[in-house]
Amino acid sequence: MTQIIRAEPLESLCREIFIAKGAPVDIAAIVAESLVTTNLFGHDSHGVLRVKQYVTMIRDGMIQPDQRPRIHKRFGATAMVTGGYGFGQIGARYAAELAAEIGAEHGIGAVSLGQSTHVGRLGEYTAMIAAKGLIGIGFTSGSMYSGWVTPYGGRERTFGTNPMSFAVPSGDGGSLLLDFATSGVAHGKIVLARTKGAPLPIGMMLDKEGRPTTDAGILDDGAVLLAMGLHKGSGLSLMMEIIPTLLAGHRPISSPEFHFGNPTLLIALAPAAFDEETDFTEHVDSLKRRVKAVTPADGFAEVLLPGEPEAQSYAERVKSGIPLPKEVWADLCALAANLTISSPIQALT
Amino acid sequence: MTQIIRAEPLESLCREIFIAKGAPVDIAAIVAESLVTTNLFGHDSHGVLRVKQYVTMIRDGMIQPDQRPRIHKRFGATAMVTGGYGFGQIGARYAAELAAEIGAEHGIGAVSLGQSTHVGRLGEYTAMIAAKGLIGIGFTSGSMYSGWVTPYGGRERTFGTNPMSFAVPSGDGGSLLLDFATSGVAHGKIVLARTKGAPLPIGMMLDKEGRPTTDAGILDDGAVLLAMGLHKGSGLSLMMEIIPTLLAGHRPISSPEFHFGNPTLLIALAPAAFDEETDFTEHVDSLKRRVKAVTPADGFAEVLLPGEPEAQSYAERVKSGIPLPKEVWADLCALAANLTISSPIQALT
Repeated sequence: MTQIIRAEPLESLCREIFIAKGAPVDIAAIVAESLVTTNLFGHDSHGVLRVKQYVTMIRDGMIQPDQRPRIHKRFGATAMVTGGYGFGQIGARYAAELAAEIGAEHGIGAVSLGQSTHVGRLGEYTAMIAAKGLIGIGFTSGSMYSGWVTPYGGRERTFGTNPMSFAVPSGDGGSLLLDFATSGVAHGKIVLARTKGAPLPIGMMLDKEGRPTTDAGILDDGAVLLAMGLHKGSGLSLMMEIIPTLLAGHRPISSPEFHFGNPTLLIALAPAAFDEETDFTEHVDSLKRRVKAVTPADGFAEVLLPGEPEAQSYAERVKSGIPLPKEVWADLCALAANLTISSPIQALT
Repeated sequence: MTQIIRAEPLESLCREIFIAKGAPVDIAAIVAESLVTTNLFGHDSHGVLRVKQYVTMIRDGMIQPDQRPRIHKRFGATAMVTGGYGFGQIGARYAAELAAEIGAEHGIGAVSLGQSTHVGRLGEYTAMIAAKGLIGIGFTSGSMYSGWVTPYGGRERTFGTNPMSFAVPSGDGGSLLLDFATSGVAHGKIVLARTKGAPLPIGMMLDKEGRPTTDAGILDDGAVLLAMGLHKGSGLSLMMEIIPTLLAGHRPISSPEFHFGNPTLLIALAPAAFDEETDFTEHVDSLKRRVKAVTPADGFAEVLLPGEPEAQSYAERVKSGIPLPKEVWADLCALAANLTISSPIQALT
């Protein structure tokens, strides 16, 4: 059961909830926009579903809603930014802008973000870098309390779902954006399959005995997620436990010193610093066209580029609204009611 | 049928073949060492099997055996190196050393390598960076004549096998090295399965109609390789067609302007530039220990870290020699005989 809500009033509602919980107006606006945009892109597990979680985290002192990121250290073409446990979206945006600025000046820039809470959709920040004409690379690790993903060959929750993202500028100010969890499937999609009683694809999860399973129902009965792409994806997940984590002053999820959050590393590369003679975006555009023209495999209607499903969802949901599960909508309404915020809920539905 | 050859005489033989074909002594020594070390690590598809191919490429003017790499452009924390179509190993080593040098100075350094022939094992160069105490990241694209890998959802050879590598320093001057093709399986492993008449794992290849197949025998009958990890690995492969390629002045494999070779991007990050308070290698070592202690899944004897199978092969082959297929050994003997080189072949066997 879903409730269709249009993006603008939903964003206003989220903004006002965050303001009422102590966020300055500008911070509340950015976090609300980030969450609603993520819903528009179709990634509901990282959208306004999170508002309730964030409010709980503010209540428990895990998110400091008025904290602003600051540069902890600047060295050469690098910086370490500390988010001060403010909203992760604010820290990650700041880190992305700084990485792009350093990248434009030095040809490459890298910024780590520590003391970071949930950053939301990692691709938002690499896309920000690509929108400025640079190549954006993003690495994140993290988890709320513990890992979900076992190293390949094992059967223990050890790693986070550890996303990676790559964004390259393309023509007309656009970008080509790749953004994925290094787990085979996102935790949220398993929860969804469980709700629907649908089987998982093979190769995504092991049961508590370490045997392959497609039964999403046993998720909370000691099941572990597998990384994408067998040992290769497991290796990528391991590298995400190390690189963004340690460069941001965090600790791997499996460490006794682990502290929740999304330590993040953002790298920005300026194509013209390397080869001025190559028209980068023109070559990206023609490669995109060649990939789109590839004959579909058996069972596929067309070849999709990274970001295409998101763009399709965006176009559709901007027009028709965002379908929210009844429970998510009820949670938002309850938060709004308790806070006596100004936007009347009635206007939204 | 295999012939066991010890590493040192095999390296001498390869070195002398390259010298006889016009390579200066130092260049011949590095290329021979790189190929034999790759055999020691167990990656025979990138080892001395390539000597015959390189000799043919020298004959055809595709490799200039006496060319040395040089800096084409230096900007901020970046450089573009041109290999001048010399041996790819020489260019990639030079680029790795330069990236590490820039990384130590600026906190991060990125070097692209253009006019590059076959670089061999990408992990060799990221491991060089890690051996200097920096994090090494390597991206490569390339193919001899055309791609092998279809974009996810398609059935046309479009992308190369496009490797990625990550190496982080660990204790005792060691490193943790991840090095993999973004195709599900390396082209050379399919050739091997075909020779043995063994089935491929599911999800690695499509037949010419775009249907999944495990029959390695149809490789040359229009089959296409799949990327690792479904759409995620396909996205990584796509990014490797763009990032190292365009930054090195090359063109994607599917481009009409494609020219053979391995355009490469090497990035070096200095952990201490970000967070001086974290003992990076100590945390890598303790994470390695935690991963090794994970209970094995059903059907696995132990959890292997990236690089462990290679280290096992290395220890074994240094002691007992390198098993070469009879044909590879015969090719080397024929090259040696034609060249009347100084090492008597008889001494090797």
